[in-house]
Amino acid sequence: MSDASHKITATGSNHSVGIVQPQHAAFTEPLALDCGRSLPSYALVYETYGQLNAMGNNAVLICHALSGDHHAAGFHAETERKPGWWDSAIGPGKPIDTNRFFVVCLNNLGGCKGSTGPLSIDPDTGKPYGPDFPIVTVRDWVNAQHHLMQHLGMASWAAVIGGSLGGMQVLQWSISYPEAIAHAIVIAAAPKLSAQNIAFNEVARQAIITDPEFFGGRYAEQGSIPRRGLMLARMLGHITYLSDDAMRAKFGRELRSGQVNYGFDVEFQVESYLRYQGTSFVDRFDANTYLLMTKALDYFDPAHDYGDDLVAALTPAQADFLVVSFTSDWRFAPERSREIVRALLAAGKRVSYAEIESNHGHDAFLMTIPYYHRVLAGYMANIDLTGSNQSGAL
Amino acid sequence: MSDASHKITATGSNHSVGIVQPQHAAFTEPLALDCGRSLPSYALVYETYGQLNAMGNNAVLICHALSGDHHAAGFHAETERKPGWWDSAIGPGKPIDTNRFFVVCLNNLGGCKGSTGPLSIDPDTGKPYGPDFPIVTVRDWVNAQHHLMQHLGMASWAAVIGGSLGGMQVLQWSISYPEAIAHAIVIAAAPKLSAQNIAFNEVARQAIITDPEFFGGRYAEQGSIPRRGLMLARMLGHITYLSDDAMRAKFGRELRSGQVNYGFDVEFQVESYLRYQGTSFVDRFDANTYLLMTKALDYFDPAHDYGDDLVAALTPAQADFLVVSFTSDWRFAPERSREIVRALLAAGKRVSYAEIESNHGHDAFLMTIPYYHRVLAGYMANIDLTGSNQSGAL
Repeated sequence: MSDASHKITATGSNHSVGIVQPQHAAFTEPLALDCGRSLPSYALVYETYGQLNAMGNNAVLICHALSGDHHAAGFHAETERKPGWWDSAIGPGKPIDTNRFFVVCLNNLGGCKGSTGPLSIDPDTGKPYGPDFPIVTVRDWVNAQHHLMQHLGMASWAAVIGGSLGGMQVLQWSISYPEAIAHAIVIAAAPKLSAQNIAFNEVARQAIITDPEFFGGRYAEQGSIPRRGLMLARMLGHITYLSDDAMRAKFGRELRSGQVNYGFDVEFQVESYLRYQGTSFVDRFDANTYLLMTKALDYFDPAHDYGDDLVAALTPAQADFLVVSFTSDWRFAPERSREIVRALLAAGKRVSYAEIESNHGHDAFLMTIPYYHRVLAGYMANIDLTGSNQSGAL
Repeated sequence: MSDASHKITATGSNHSVGIVQPQHAAFTEPLALDCGRSLPSYALVYETYGQLNAMGNNAVLICHALSGDHHAAGFHAETERKPGWWDSAIGPGKPIDTNRFFVVCLNNLGGCKGSTGPLSIDPDTGKPYGPDFPIVTVRDWVNAQHHLMQHLGMASWAAVIGGSLGGMQVLQWSISYPEAIAHAIVIAAAPKLSAQNIAFNEVARQAIITDPEFFGGRYAEQGSIPRRGLMLARMLGHITYLSDDAMRAKFGRELRSGQVNYGFDVEFQVESYLRYQGTSFVDRFDANTYLLMTKALDYFDPAHDYGDDLVAALTPAQADFLVVSFTSDWRFAPERSREIVRALLAAGKRVSYAEIESNHGHDAFLMTIPYYHRVLAGYMANIDLTGSNQSGAL
């Protein structure tokens, strides 16, 4: 047990977890990967919010999506303007209530925010892994997360929660470690990518890989960055995160300068938005990591090992499930969530399903939508922690 | 009148128009463009199928879409394997029946298949226009097409027909030259692009413009081609042309080699398809032209000059309209066609509307879908050419 080390400076004001410090966990046992290779050693960077109770049964794992990281809530410094990526849902009195739960979020293997990934030194060569970092899968991530759980002195999670690619990790948890996950919250996810999803990923990858500054993934050694490719990948991603309706509401066909200029500079507001999203992403993300994340998405297909039978794949699960989708999400449409729900029901699992009315597209899962947050809060409030010595303020 | 010059070697066999020869029309009067510039002179390359009748009232104009050209039907040589891009619909006994109609299709201004465009010599400099070719709009194209009509000795079209960007030209014809178009067939189009449509175009443009081989559009002078950018633009385009269902039916999640290889080479069939479509496009299309075509799409918005009132914009139209959409088209969804239909009805126009069941996405407009072709054929058969001296075999 290592409770003390996870103490954070929670101010409690503004329903924020306050200032948080990323922590590191080093693992020296090799990790065997789906691709057949293994990592001889690795480190995971993570953050925690709230406190583990004495029973050790109030821990919640948050799994991040494609470009997410371990910084899910709070601030790294008093001067920081933007909180963690899911601060809207995590904190004292928030749907994932840190007055009640001990919340853990990590940067996944292959990431670029501190966990072992392409930017890390390969012990075999003494140089950054770069493109030699092995392909990692959702199952590999879950295995690494399981090691982190043990490292933190816990035997199970009260809940594992994630949206999009994060939701896939939740599904995998319920299959790989059925006894270690009491509640599974799968948000805006799919049981596997569609051909169209893979196609978008492939265009993004080709944008990066064909960028002359990519140098076969060894751009760092060349002192360069495949800026153009990463920018294009992000622009494209943003189109799939927003619904057509959301784009209409947000930008319509508004001209940036108020008049048509008949040129190739930014003409419409939506172009300006995409270029900004694309260029700012380059400064905070690594191209090799982006490639790895899209591959993890492509390969995720838990039914594959069970003769394409999702019911069979989910049969081992013991968790109680909450599945959430958003009406205007066309990246992982409600129908993809219903596939999960139908398979869970057919496998005899306990499952609640909420289809949230929203015109924000896939991005909705990160937004403060009142009904969505009430569903999340209600489900979390019903998680039974009896037997623990918790009190309201624990 | 220049009937004789349009005679084609129609074999009549296989319902094909047979071997066709592209023709050129040169225009020496300057053409004023929407962007404020003008072309001092220009040429249009076109093809014709069937014969103009003595009344000159059986001519049909086919307007091409983004990557189309003047070669809509037949073959350029006996050895040619692939016919023109809309050979399925144009020919003797086909929906656009060349036994009855004189069909004209041209390459639009700014194109790269023979009409004046970025590859043409700028008379002011003696060098190819390249990126200095002016931005052209759908209205500019329609004006140039009107000059071609007059050049061919005709006062009007029995019908103007087009799909996608071609359908936008049809709408513009009905507004710009109401007396010169008796029937307007608008297929898989929209009254203007949505923010999402513009966003996809912008990513495609950025892929081309940021390609280091683009050289600000002067790649020809550098002896280079922005292959990567054009490839990415085309890959992205293809995702929007196919429906998610069509991709599922066509590729599913089929692995190309039958097994997962955990690498960045082609893994799924859909990746292979997209890379092929992308790389083959580079050999037959010009990057500057691609940029121009996407801009023509972005700028099309006939309602804009009428206080965003599409009904007011369409009020001058005198044509009889057929509007066609396809259920699985998400690039220009049926709802976009219904916007056109509602505005036409509100403006008191005669309009038929067919929503065709298809899972082929936007691409459906080029496909031989029996119900679709029956609708087209039925509408065309009802076009009244009485007063002409035509007989069945004219």
